[in-house]
Amino acid sequence: MKVVSAIKRVPEHIQKRLTDKFSSVEFLFCEGIEEAEHHLPEADVFITYGEDLGSERIKKAERLKWVMVLSAGLDKMPFEIIERKGITVTNVRGIHAEPMAEYALSMLLQASRSAKAMYANQQKHHWGRSLTFNEINHRTMVLIGTGAIAQETARLAQAFHMKTIGISRSGEAKPHFDETHKVDELSDQLPQADFVVAVLPSTEETKYLLNAAHFQLMPEHCIFLNMGRGDLVASDDILLAVREGEISHAVLDVFEQEPLPEDHPFWEEENITITPHISGHSPQYIPRGFDIFEENLERYVQGESQLVNLIDPKRGY
Amino acid sequence: MKVVSAIKRVPEHIQKRLTDKFSSVEFLFCEGIEEAEHHLPEADVFITYGEDLGSERIKKAERLKWVMVLSAGLDKMPFEIIERKGITVTNVRGIHAEPMAEYALSMLLQASRSAKAMYANQQKHHWGRSLTFNEINHRTMVLIGTGAIAQETARLAQAFHMKTIGISRSGEAKPHFDETHKVDELSDQLPQADFVVAVLPSTEETKYLLNAAHFQLMPEHCIFLNMGRGDLVASDDILLAVREGEISHAVLDVFEQEPLPEDHPFWEEENITITPHISGHSPQYIPRGFDIFEENLERYVQGESQLVNLIDPKRGY
Repeated sequence: MKVVSAIKRVPEHIQKRLTDKFSSVEFLFCEGIEEAEHHLPEADVFITYGEDLGSERIKKAERLKWVMVLSAGLDKMPFEIIERKGITVTNVRGIHAEPMAEYALSMLLQASRSAKAMYANQQKHHWGRSLTFNEINHRTMVLIGTGAIAQETARLAQAFHMKTIGISRSGEAKPHFDETHKVDELSDQLPQADFVVAVLPSTEETKYLLNAAHFQLMPEHCIFLNMGRGDLVASDDILLAVREGEISHAVLDVFEQEPLPEDHPFWEEENITITPHISGHSPQYIPRGFDIFEENLERYVQGESQLVNLIDPKRGY
Repeated sequence: MKVVSAIKRVPEHIQKRLTDKFSSVEFLFCEGIEEAEHHLPEADVFITYGEDLGSERIKKAERLKWVMVLSAGLDKMPFEIIERKGITVTNVRGIHAEPMAEYALSMLLQASRSAKAMYANQQKHHWGRSLTFNEINHRTMVLIGTGAIAQETARLAQAFHMKTIGISRSGEAKPHFDETHKVDELSDQLPQADFVVAVLPSTEETKYLLNAAHFQLMPEHCIFLNMGRGDLVASDDILLAVREGEISHAVLDVFEQEPLPEDHPFWEEENITITPHISGHSPQYIPRGFDIFEENLERYVQGESQLVNLIDPKRGY
């Protein structure tokens, strides 16, 4: 059996661990898809970020039985041909939960504790003790989204003794949420939100789900954080809410246009913190992805059909 | 019974809550010790930050039976005369635990996630995605100190799945520590520390407890945070450790000299973050202090002698 990986820069120790552990498996670690595609015809198993595995390439992979996608999004996978050829697909769903939850807590702490102004004081050699250092302890967080990332964020929020309220289409109860509500009850929940954290993917239903009226419902001290998708809310609505003091701060990792244009008014707003769509970035990404792969490969070589994060090609998730 | 408070700016709602609840008690809320000292002769109970209650003032307080000190430090209390007069003393020990633990986690997250460089990028309107965003999840934290503040910090660290190692004089086991060790075993623990957090008070034993050799034992990626006292370690030792790359970052809230002099080299170090001795600051300070007072007053009016945070005047803590 041959495993071909298209993932760049897989650490030596991971390559060695897999090679040592699975002596019946031949591994080929390539530096990207251009190198890997030459080896597709021999691959039984293919490891990829998924974006680059079009139907043309899949056709070349005559022996392919399993594609391990080292990504959570699968929008670009050619599922029709995958289903026809009976190829198994797994992904790394959930891999973003820990780094993104850390991002959220980190940024809410920073915004609550005047981090931006504190760094400015250091630049000025200024011993400034009069800044506001609000606690996040015992506050209320409204999370728009209740999936794996939102759950891990809520878990950490609860460790800070927060009350956690989740908003989802179904309103179904989920771990680490004190309450969950349907999306049409969102407005009722906003007035009690010290923090509003948006973690929604972009779909027809979530596009511009939030608008100016929602910000008016949030308390003036509320901090809004968006690490889902930039088209959840119009930039102008955020800008107005911050400028009018309807909320105290916006932390934004995602934008309607990315990269955020250099002349965008967000950059200069004291009460907006910009991060360049990095909430899911982590040096642990490849190690975690290969941990999931290793677990699956173990099952696979033993002939088990039940793999972790198995994708239904009909549904595409 | 008369309660005289010397605490400035006690919120109206707290004054009202106490006045409404304890109808048999007369409350006088003064704006500071200058106003309050005129009323000391009538006070049965006195609420103070403690620093300003010298033996001269205590002598005037002829009816005084209980002093509630809204501070954790009691260095300046005239315990001799307090003991002679049989006055009960309670304080707000533990009140700093939540804000200081939040401070620690906030700053470690910031230093791990390149917050300083990210704010600099925002100032430059620069969409910079190549910064390092290390996770704090699953790391190891060595805490020097295992008291209430260290325990709360360790509790939060464990919520981030960290391994927590506590260092104290006794090495006694304490809640939220995976391991505890005696201070003479500190050097053995440092090589595994991703984070070293110092929360020690200043005593003869803790003065310059840390030195250059300790930094050499820490891993190069280690972040050192001091929120205890500035004389735990010489400034020059910290500066050298950061400049030589023996550690990756130092977060300092306390200094040998405070305020930190304007021309101190710390201010300009990229890998040193300075906060102006604010780790314990919180808008929740007075509300929390009066929560403890209220609990104690309830017991006191019912004639209970077992109060929360009762101080032994012989030991001074």
